[in-house]
Amino acid sequence: MTAERLVVIGGDATGMSAASQARRVKGPEELSIVAFERGHFTSYSACGIPYWVSGDVAERDDLIARSPEEHRARAIDLRMRTEVTEIDVAGQRVRALDRESGETYWTGFDKLVIATGARPVRPALPGMDAAGVHGVQTLDDGQALLDTLDRAPGRRAVVVGAGYIGVEMAEALLKHGFQVTVLNRGEQPMATLDPDMGRLVHDAMDGLGITTVNRAEVTKILTGADGRVTAVATNDATHPADVVVLGIGVEPETTLARAAGLPVGPHGGLLTDLSMRVVGHDNIWAGGDCVEVLDLVAGRTRHIALGTHANKHGQIIGANVGGGYGTFPGVVGTAVSKVCDLEIARTGLREKDARAVGLRFVTATIESTGRAGYYPGAQPMTVKMLAEYRTGRLLGVQIVGRDGAAKRVDIAAVALTAGMTVEQMTALDLGYAPPFSPVWDPVLVAARKAVTAVRRAGTA
Amino acid sequence: MTAERLVVIGGDATGMSAASQARRVKGPEELSIVAFERGHFTSYSACGIPYWVSGDVAERDDLIARSPEEHRARAIDLRMRTEVTEIDVAGQRVRALDRESGETYWTGFDKLVIATGARPVRPALPGMDAAGVHGVQTLDDGQALLDTLDRAPGRRAVVVGAGYIGVEMAEALLKHGFQVTVLNRGEQPMATLDPDMGRLVHDAMDGLGITTVNRAEVTKILTGADGRVTAVATNDATHPADVVVLGIGVEPETTLARAAGLPVGPHGGLLTDLSMRVVGHDNIWAGGDCVEVLDLVAGRTRHIALGTHANKHGQIIGANVGGGYGTFPGVVGTAVSKVCDLEIARTGLREKDARAVGLRFVTATIESTGRAGYYPGAQPMTVKMLAEYRTGRLLGVQIVGRDGAAKRVDIAAVALTAGMTVEQMTALDLGYAPPFSPVWDPVLVAARKAVTAVRRAGTA
Repeated sequence: MTAERLVVIGGDATGMSAASQARRVKGPEELSIVAFERGHFTSYSACGIPYWVSGDVAERDDLIARSPEEHRARAIDLRMRTEVTEIDVAGQRVRALDRESGETYWTGFDKLVIATGARPVRPALPGMDAAGVHGVQTLDDGQALLDTLDRAPGRRAVVVGAGYIGVEMAEALLKHGFQVTVLNRGEQPMATLDPDMGRLVHDAMDGLGITTVNRAEVTKILTGADGRVTAVATNDATHPADVVVLGIGVEPETTLARAAGLPVGPHGGLLTDLSMRVVGHDNIWAGGDCVEVLDLVAGRTRHIALGTHANKHGQIIGANVGGGYGTFPGVVGTAVSKVCDLEIARTGLREKDARAVGLRFVTATIESTGRAGYYPGAQPMTVKMLAEYRTGRLLGVQIVGRDGAAKRVDIAAVALTAGMTVEQMTALDLGYAPPFSPVWDPVLVAARKAVTAVRRAGTA
Repeated sequence: MTAERLVVIGGDATGMSAASQARRVKGPEELSIVAFERGHFTSYSACGIPYWVSGDVAERDDLIARSPEEHRARAIDLRMRTEVTEIDVAGQRVRALDRESGETYWTGFDKLVIATGARPVRPALPGMDAAGVHGVQTLDDGQALLDTLDRAPGRRAVVVGAGYIGVEMAEALLKHGFQVTVLNRGEQPMATLDPDMGRLVHDAMDGLGITTVNRAEVTKILTGADGRVTAVATNDATHPADVVVLGIGVEPETTLARAAGLPVGPHGGLLTDLSMRVVGHDNIWAGGDCVEVLDLVAGRTRHIALGTHANKHGQIIGANVGGGYGTFPGVVGTAVSKVCDLEIARTGLREKDARAVGLRFVTATIESTGRAGYYPGAQPMTVKMLAEYRTGRLLGVQIVGRDGAAKRVDIAAVALTAGMTVEQMTALDLGYAPPFSPVWDPVLVAARKAVTAVRRAGTA
């Protein structure tokens, strides 16, 4: 019997999880695995880059879960610095370019996994390629930024974008002694929150000494005679900068897949079925940052670049490719982040998400603490909850607070998955002891207020 | 119209929550409220007493959520130091004893709330009433213990019992500079966990300098010529002690209710329906530490003395008494605790609980960390999961770890409430970022291992 051949495009979380899982299920005599990675690294935590840049994580290699050598030791034919430049779907082959030698060649496949990830959004503005302007998508990006920080002529940093990456990078730059300005296109930072909750993040960032400029549209990167960045110009101001970090967000890297005619959704990501098979293609799977996922609350697909989804996808693809079984039902949109000691969390729908899919809702916002009020270290926490009009079904939760705030969102993530109503949530048997929670957990307090709001709206 | 009269027996969490909630719904012209409390305090956090004794909480009054005066200001006729000594169900009246004046009198009711709480188990052993032997159930108990600690002739403390109160008090005594020995009747401390998880607590307590003696049956409290405790004798040893703290547990205080012929369950607690009405009695409600609650996983009632349930009961009773609507569906048995920086959590069934109700199950135990392994401060965490044989339904979770370990049990608490299988849990969209979780949350890692265990057991 000739072994089937699995080809994997992309050597990070999804690709190598899929390869490893497939290898666990099938030995080399049954399945040969060839994996292509165009960069220098495999299986690393891109989410950890801000913490490496900040110095919290000492070494770049700490972020690498598994090296190329470790993958090869498991009988995976991993080809580094080799970029797939074409997928021939009908011919069941991919064309690869060895970036070291410049050589190109075709490799046939029986099964294909596309795990090409995401690429940072880089607006086409003058000066974007100037020295001192950095993205933070890859380990190479992180190293380049660290080199710049060491050599920066001054200590003024501008971060473009106030989403997760932006606020995490603001913290990292603060730790390097920079004076940090965050330029935010939106009304408030953290556009993944409603503006009223984003406002709390803004205030906290102020308190940390980070300047946030809202409604700032970057128009140009200004450079000096040496070609290095000197400032960032917006619609109405100029912000001096010795270093600029781009944290605008990412979009699915699907150039290859589009060229091959594979189906792409409204957010630019590949479309898959529940088994992570590309729609219409029995022998092609895709996962991670290059696909769209079903938002179980909105009933639509979304694009979410997040390591935890990428790893789950890899696991499921690996099982299915290996002849096992696994499905990815979708997401509820949970995300957690922090700036210094401020914790930020969200799951489910924001107000505008709910409106966009035709849901009518009520909101309830409460303030509480993460521990019993009398327990030392109790810190304020704000919880906002959205519930559907009439049915009272939970639609979303946002939390801004400190110690113990962020992971409380998991309570809501599970409740959303289970389709609970806010009234059902008021009865949840959550862990209580004074060092961990007030006697009414903040999530329960929010649920109680949401119940009242649903009831009032129903009789209005 | 004459106002209806509501009588409340017991002025702590359930009783005063019920009174306050009822008052919110109905004004004094519709409902008069008389509440009897035999002690000196109302609405205080008994769960906070160990942290007051330890010195973490500075003042006794910090534990008091609402004073008698505050309750009276809301038109609640609160009678302190007044003990109800008899309930005349047929006559719809209670007899009260004013402990200050010695006067007794009858008060009629249209509706009655029984919130008599729990009393500490005090084994009838020689020397139990000696000076220096303390329970920690009430604020008065806490004050008496603090006075003893100040005056103790030496610095040797013995804690009898290794449950929540026992381990919390061990920490408190350690903070007062005592050399602490915990005498535990069971195989391992924290009998609310399986012994394999209790073992982890034992080891951690060792590391903190707390001596735990397992399988120790206390036989006698030894006293000196002055009547003060000098040692605790067990079946096979004598442990010198300058102070002894009893943390053996509590039992429902239902003496009054039993005498009145009200129905009591197998664990000694009052039996109620879902609206917290005492079974068979349309105008009598009961809640908090004096009732049994339905364990939604086991399908049986249990007795759980916990402030969070007591407060929920009070809220629901108050709504129902006031003509509103609320139900308490039951519990899944969630509890969290800590000893110094060790966090301990459990929800659902232990192995022996599952066996006791005829469930066959598999277990999975994993070790992980509360943050990404590379993130500073990542600490080990052990998660044990029980899942039903064949169906894979989640039955219980136990967690022992450090930073961020305990409240992760809430994920399982919600999943248990929703009746999720461990396979469904593997797809949960939990909050991920390196400071908060590894890319696979420890609960997901445990769920994945449990899925494998269920599958293997099914094919065995």
